[in-house]
Amino acid sequence: MVNSNRLWSRIHELSSIGQTPDNGVTRFSYTDVEHEANEQVKKYMEEAGLEVTFDAVGNVIGTLPGSKDLPAILLGSHLDTVPNGGKFDGSLGVLTAIEVVQSLQEQNIHLNHPVKVIAFKDEEGSRFGFGMIGSLAVAGNLQKEDLQRKDANGVSLHDAMIKQGYSPENILEARMDDVKLYLELHIEQGKVLEKENVPVGVVTGIAGPLWLKFSLIGQAEHAGATPMNQRKDPLVAASLIISETEKLAKKYENAVATVGTISLAPGGVNVIPGSVEFTIDIRDVKEELRDQLEKEIKDYAATITAEREIDLSIEDLQRVAPVLCSNEIQNTIKESIADQGYPVISLPSGAGHDGMQFKDRFPVGMIFVRSQHGISHNPQEFTTKEDAKAGAETMLKTVCKLDKE
Amino acid sequence: MVNSNRLWSRIHELSSIGQTPDNGVTRFSYTDVEHEANEQVKKYMEEAGLEVTFDAVGNVIGTLPGSKDLPAILLGSHLDTVPNGGKFDGSLGVLTAIEVVQSLQEQNIHLNHPVKVIAFKDEEGSRFGFGMIGSLAVAGNLQKEDLQRKDANGVSLHDAMIKQGYSPENILEARMDDVKLYLELHIEQGKVLEKENVPVGVVTGIAGPLWLKFSLIGQAEHAGATPMNQRKDPLVAASLIISETEKLAKKYENAVATVGTISLAPGGVNVIPGSVEFTIDIRDVKEELRDQLEKEIKDYAATITAEREIDLSIEDLQRVAPVLCSNEIQNTIKESIADQGYPVISLPSGAGHDGMQFKDRFPVGMIFVRSQHGISHNPQEFTTKEDAKAGAETMLKTVCKLDKE
Repeated sequence: MVNSNRLWSRIHELSSIGQTPDNGVTRFSYTDVEHEANEQVKKYMEEAGLEVTFDAVGNVIGTLPGSKDLPAILLGSHLDTVPNGGKFDGSLGVLTAIEVVQSLQEQNIHLNHPVKVIAFKDEEGSRFGFGMIGSLAVAGNLQKEDLQRKDANGVSLHDAMIKQGYSPENILEARMDDVKLYLELHIEQGKVLEKENVPVGVVTGIAGPLWLKFSLIGQAEHAGATPMNQRKDPLVAASLIISETEKLAKKYENAVATVGTISLAPGGVNVIPGSVEFTIDIRDVKEELRDQLEKEIKDYAATITAEREIDLSIEDLQRVAPVLCSNEIQNTIKESIADQGYPVISLPSGAGHDGMQFKDRFPVGMIFVRSQHGISHNPQEFTTKEDAKAGAETMLKTVCKLDKE
Repeated sequence: MVNSNRLWSRIHELSSIGQTPDNGVTRFSYTDVEHEANEQVKKYMEEAGLEVTFDAVGNVIGTLPGSKDLPAILLGSHLDTVPNGGKFDGSLGVLTAIEVVQSLQEQNIHLNHPVKVIAFKDEEGSRFGFGMIGSLAVAGNLQKEDLQRKDANGVSLHDAMIKQGYSPENILEARMDDVKLYLELHIEQGKVLEKENVPVGVVTGIAGPLWLKFSLIGQAEHAGATPMNQRKDPLVAASLIISETEKLAKKYENAVATVGTISLAPGGVNVIPGSVEFTIDIRDVKEELRDQLEKEIKDYAATITAEREIDLSIEDLQRVAPVLCSNEIQNTIKESIADQGYPVISLPSGAGHDGMQFKDRFPVGMIFVRSQHGISHNPQEFTTKEDAKAGAETMLKTVCKLDKE
C-alpha cells in the first residue's frame, strides 16, 4: 500500500514552486525555479532512503541498492512544464516513483534489482525548441550540436547548463547502460479513461512527435500605401497553411497537427509583415501516417508560397519515431490493474514521453492515470487523489512483479 | 532656391539616431533615442533662425515671426518610425520644412505670416497602439483616457511623457488655434509617381486608417493528446479570418486591409493556443467603402468563431475619418510644380498623416515626393537627392504663394 496522503501533499507542495497567478505552474529548464524544484525532489528522495546524485545534464537520480547484482529498474518522469502548465504533468510521475520506493522501504519489502528514480531534465522543450533533453542524455543520444540550440533570449543550452553548475562537456557520462526496464506513470492528458470511467490504464505505445519550424519571407511595406495586388504578405500565406493543416489532419483517424507558436517581424499595426515563423507539431502512433500527413502539409505550403512569391524554408526541430511499449511490461501492468478490481483499458499515448528515447535500448512501460476533462498543459489540469493513489498502487504492484522475473 | 546639399546631409545625419543593423531606423516615442533626435532637430531649427519650444506632449516647435500680425503657416511632419523603418518617412518632411525656412532667411525673403515648423510626436503609433499623438494634441483632440494606453512593457503614455519631462496634465495647452493652414511634405510610400516618372505630386486626400484589435479565446490543451475534433483552437479561427480579410479587401478598387501584428498565449510548440490577438488596419479614401469592408470582415469573424465556439471581441484602436485636401492649397502646389517644368500629377494618400487631425480645424495640403519602388516602413525606403530637392522647391514656392493670399 502506498501513502496517498503523503503523495497528495507532495504534489501540492511541489506545485508551489513556479506557481503562476492562474494557479498553474511555469518551470523552464535550467532556471532558478527549476533548481528549487530539483532540490525539493532531492529532499523527498532522501526521505525515501535514496542516495541522490545529479548527472552531467542535471537529471536528478535517486538510487536504492538491490539485494542482487542486477540491472536497475528505472522509474521516473520530468519536473519541467510548458508555460502556465499544470501541477500533474511530469511531477506526478516523479513523486509516484518516490512514493513507491518509500512505501516499499517502510514495509520492509526488499527488491532483488536496484531501483533508480529519475527526474528528467526538460521533457517539454518549452525553452530551447526541442525537448526530452534529460532522457536523450540517458539514452546516450544528446549531441554536442544540440547544446548550441538557443532560447528566446539567445542563451544556448550549453551556457544554461554551465550557469546551473552542470557539465555539458561530459554529456556522454549521463548515458545509462545497466538498466532492466523503464517504467513511467503519467497523466493521460486525454479523455479515454474518463469516458471508460476507470482511474488507470496501460499504454500500448507512444506517438512520436515531429516538430517543424516554418519560416516565410515576403516583403515588409507600408500597410496604407501598398495595393492588395502588389503585396508579398507572408502572414496571409502562413494563415492559409495553418487552416489547411487542420483540414488535412482531420482526414486521419488518429493524427493531430498543431500550430502552437507564431511570430512575425517587424510587427507594426500599419506594416505589412516581412517575415513570419511558426511551428507545427505533428503526431500519429503510426510513423507512415505521420510521414504522409507531413508531406501533404509541406506540399500545400510549397504551392501557396510559390504562387505568392514568398520564400519558404522548413526546419526539423525534433523528429521522434513512435515507440511500442514492451508486451511483458504491459501484461504485468494489466495484472496489477486487475488485482485492484478495475477493468483493464489499453490505450495509445498521443503525447510524447521520455520513454521514447529508450527505443532499441531497453524495454519501456507506461501507466496512465485519468485526467479530468482531458485537460492538460493548462492550470486546470487535474487528477483526483483517489486516481493518483490507484496509479501509485499499480506502479508498486508492477515493480514488485517485474522484480521477480 | 533651397540648399539641397544641406538637406541631404541632414537626412543622413538624423538617420544615424536610432540606426538599426539593417541600416534602417527604429525611433519610438518618448525614448532616449527619440529625445536625441528631437535635440538634433532643435539644433537645425536654431540654425534656420527659428525660436524653439517643446509643447506639453513634446512636439518640437520652431517659430519664425511674420511681418504682419496674421495666423501662422504650419509646416511639419514627424520624427518617430515603425520598428526597423526607413530614413525618409516623417524625417524628410520635418527637415524640408526647416530647409525652406532657412533658405528664405538666407535669401532675405520675409513673409507676412509667421511660420511654425513642427515635429509631431508619435505619428506611427508603434509604441502605444495608436498614432498621431502629437497632431491629436495640436488639434485639441488628445483625450485624458488616451494617456492610459500602455506600451508592450506596460508603461502608460502618461508615465512615458513624465519620464521624458513633458506635462500630460497640460495636454490641452498644446492645442493651436491661430493657424492659417497646415502643409506637409512626405514620401509617397507607393509607386504612382514612379510609374508616372515625376519627382513630386499633389495629394487630393488622405485615406483614414481604422485600426481594430481582434481577441479570440479558445481552450489551451495538450497538442498530442487532444483529438482534432475536440479542439477550440483560436489560431485556426484567426488564420481563417486573416486569409478571408485579404480576399474581401481585394474585391474593392482602392481599399487595403492588413494584419501587421499577431500574438498568442501560452505559446509552446506542443500546446494548442488558448488565446490569440491580432490587429487589422483597414483603409479607403471613401469612408462608406471602408465601413462596408469593416462590416464584411467582422461578419465573417463572427460566423467563424461562433461555429468553433471561440469567444471573439473586437476593439477600436483608432478610427480616423478620411480627409480631403484644400482645393486652394492643391491649386497652389500644382502651380509650384508646373513652375519647375514637371507634369502635374494628383494622387490620394493611402497612408494616414498628421494632417488628418486638422479636418474641420484648418485647411490642409500635402506634397508627395517619389519613393523608389514604392517601398516604405522598411530600411530600403529611398528617395533620391534630386527628388527631395524638387519636393523642397515645391514647398518653398507654395509657401511664398500662399503667404500672399
